[in-house]
Amino acid sequence: MPETGITRTLAEWSAGTSWEAIPREIQREAVRTFVNWLGCAVGGAGEETTRVALRALKTVSGPAQATVLGTGDRLDVLNAALVNGISSHVLDYDDTHLKTIIHPGGPVASAALAVAEWRGSSGRDLITAVALGVEACCRIGNSVYPDHYDRGWHITGTAGVFGAAVAAGRLLGLGPRPMTWALGIAASQASGLREMFGTMTKSFHPGRAAQGGILGSLLASEGFDSSLKALEAPRGFANVLSTKQDLDEVIGGLGERWEAGLNSYKPFACGIVIHPVIDGCLQLRERLGPSVGAIRSVRLRTHPLVLELTGKTGPGTGLEGKFSVFHAAAVALLRGDGSPTAFTDEAVNDPDVVELRSRVEVTVDPRIHEASAEIVLVLADGATFELGVERAIGSVERPLSDDQLEAKFLGQAARVIGSERASHLLQLAWQVPDLQEVSTLTTVAGPR
Amino acid sequence: MPETGITRTLAEWSAGTSWEAIPREIQREAVRTFVNWLGCAVGGAGEETTRVALRALKTVSGPAQATVLGTGDRLDVLNAALVNGISSHVLDYDDTHLKTIIHPGGPVASAALAVAEWRGSSGRDLITAVALGVEACCRIGNSVYPDHYDRGWHITGTAGVFGAAVAAGRLLGLGPRPMTWALGIAASQASGLREMFGTMTKSFHPGRAAQGGILGSLLASEGFDSSLKALEAPRGFANVLSTKQDLDEVIGGLGERWEAGLNSYKPFACGIVIHPVIDGCLQLRERLGPSVGAIRSVRLRTHPLVLELTGKTGPGTGLEGKFSVFHAAAVALLRGDGSPTAFTDEAVNDPDVVELRSRVEVTVDPRIHEASAEIVLVLADGATFELGVERAIGSVERPLSDDQLEAKFLGQAARVIGSERASHLLQLAWQVPDLQEVSTLTTVAGPR
Repeated sequence: MPETGITRTLAEWSAGTSWEAIPREIQREAVRTFVNWLGCAVGGAGEETTRVALRALKTVSGPAQATVLGTGDRLDVLNAALVNGISSHVLDYDDTHLKTIIHPGGPVASAALAVAEWRGSSGRDLITAVALGVEACCRIGNSVYPDHYDRGWHITGTAGVFGAAVAAGRLLGLGPRPMTWALGIAASQASGLREMFGTMTKSFHPGRAAQGGILGSLLASEGFDSSLKALEAPRGFANVLSTKQDLDEVIGGLGERWEAGLNSYKPFACGIVIHPVIDGCLQLRERLGPSVGAIRSVRLRTHPLVLELTGKTGPGTGLEGKFSVFHAAAVALLRGDGSPTAFTDEAVNDPDVVELRSRVEVTVDPRIHEASAEIVLVLADGATFELGVERAIGSVERPLSDDQLEAKFLGQAARVIGSERASHLLQLAWQVPDLQEVSTLTTVAGPR
Repeated sequence: MPETGITRTLAEWSAGTSWEAIPREIQREAVRTFVNWLGCAVGGAGEETTRVALRALKTVSGPAQATVLGTGDRLDVLNAALVNGISSHVLDYDDTHLKTIIHPGGPVASAALAVAEWRGSSGRDLITAVALGVEACCRIGNSVYPDHYDRGWHITGTAGVFGAAVAAGRLLGLGPRPMTWALGIAASQASGLREMFGTMTKSFHPGRAAQGGILGSLLASEGFDSSLKALEAPRGFANVLSTKQDLDEVIGGLGERWEAGLNSYKPFACGIVIHPVIDGCLQLRERLGPSVGAIRSVRLRTHPLVLELTGKTGPGTGLEGKFSVFHAAAVALLRGDGSPTAFTDEAVNDPDVVELRSRVEVTVDPRIHEASAEIVLVLADGATFELGVERAIGSVERPLSDDQLEAKFLGQAARVIGSERASHLLQLAWQVPDLQEVSTLTTVAGPR
């Protein structure tokens, strides 16, 4: 394991890799990452969390440099990235690098689009920045996961800020040395605690990471220096924030194997760990037909993380519902829904859903894969239905198709900007590598 | 040790404690903290680190809400606090809560003054905010020091953001619940690595903490919620960022014993650990007279932290000189200087200083107190001079007098804004609790 030059190697590669050097399938996955993120950011714009943040930040924002997606507002590049990062994550409907549970779109694309719009960048430069930023943050995540996450860090914030720095640094044209500094300034902003899950502050993490990455690159672009070994130093990121430091993950096979190709997109608007349960419940609902009203008990066998992360038995709000496997199973069975409308205050307090969730029991078993689940339903008449989900929809093995991504995009964005605009925006998003200026896209990202 | 309600108790106390409830001597120390910080922030405004940051941030800043001290510029409240926090720390000449090595002025006063100016607050409200913010961050520091610092965290950043949140929250009029949220949002921004020592990013830490604290309070003031137990939760600040969690330090005897009364002010412009050595070398220089040119060897015995933090043998820049006990001893002996002029590129590369620093030897001994040092000088003719520094000037036992604080203030500020303005600013700073609006003071904090 090389112990020196990790940060510099990553910075040099990030600063020097061209669009042409990125394999076609990775370019394509970066576009899918962008499309998915854009839909989420527009879709989250109407949420209370986003609106509160926007209201606060408008009082201090600088010039109208970048669009707040899904709104008519433009803020300075730092504040726009912060709000878009919040917005893209607030529905827990974004993307997941499953090896690390990082949601890379939030920090990386929020930073990239804001800077690209500000600087009049091309769509190709934007997607290059997204691909390299996602690559950087997922590799850094790999080097410390799972110990780092287990300790209590929200890895989307802590690793995300590096990805945001790389993405912003690309668009600001940083050379290797300033890119190294940008990673250093990012390291000194790496933060975000899992304790915040279930509150608005969870969504703050990807936003602040996006903003911090831009800030690091902006400062570095003017000559603000930093450590040259922020990742690997004895008091650098990996040693201070983790007990595991597998730094070869950061630079091993750079440009050959790509983590950015492993991003996945959530089919359901909640923590990824309960996706297998929802997937299975939706399938069982199809099988049951009208009998879905006569369920006596729901028994789930899952990976232990499911109860650890989503063990709330009596959620009171839509947000809390996202952290309740009991609610998720009940609402999937009763309403056939795993989208944002399944996790509203209304849905969580629906008496039928509340009643059914009290009949859900969970047994954990570490031998069950995180992307799998087993479900046993017993009806009032004693009839029993069993289902094993091998790999949930949205996993690497069962990725969302482009059509499914489109449906997800439109389902979210249309609620906020109307279906006509949403369709137009989607079309531009798929074409983004061919756009001369990303402002072509951002101008249609708000309500008419 | 109470395990619940820590964060809420601190928030309630911070939100509810009036100026009158603060003991007179603590009020006075908060003014001294403010005066010392203000001199440092003005004095640091001309440094390259500050100028680079200001240049970068001007491109994105919002409305002119708060003054960048020592300059003619005004930025939005968040960016002004960031630059002032950088500026106040860049000369390593600020203040120190010696029990935790936190430099509380940077994060707390930078946040407080910017918000107070923005909101048209009175000087009394400003100093109340400073006192309570310093108290909060030092108490939180106590709960995790030294393990947290030993792990590699720059505690001025990590604990500082809570102090900044409290200070800003006071000035924004937060009630107990939003103040608890503000502490939660602060917890998710707690960051800053010791790896950055010796680079510009070290000074970024108090600035970013100041800014993060304001951001947390600003969001909370609009209803952005967060954990109610950010400090004590299993995945909260103390558990994630430290192996030591003595949470009784956070709330034990609140309002009775005051950490804010224990702040100290640096007589020398470098890391506090080498102050005993500089103090002793300055005293020996007096004794030696002209013989100071004939030193054969300098033998130091110090606490181990001295070499750990300031062990650079061949510093090349003024900034690196601050992390070299060898340079500090040599320049104190040869020039009688421990002020910012002792840590310039010129001073560090002065051939006489370079020659003498090569004759400095350090032996560490954990039995020597951190505020003490022993020095043995041998001259070319074999004559030997010995000196033991029991407690360095600037320590709690030998605090800087008001006169010494004034001299320190004027020595720094006059270089940047001229002596007439510096004197006027100093006079207003001492009177700050009587100012109806803090803008009376900020309007004279730049060059004419």
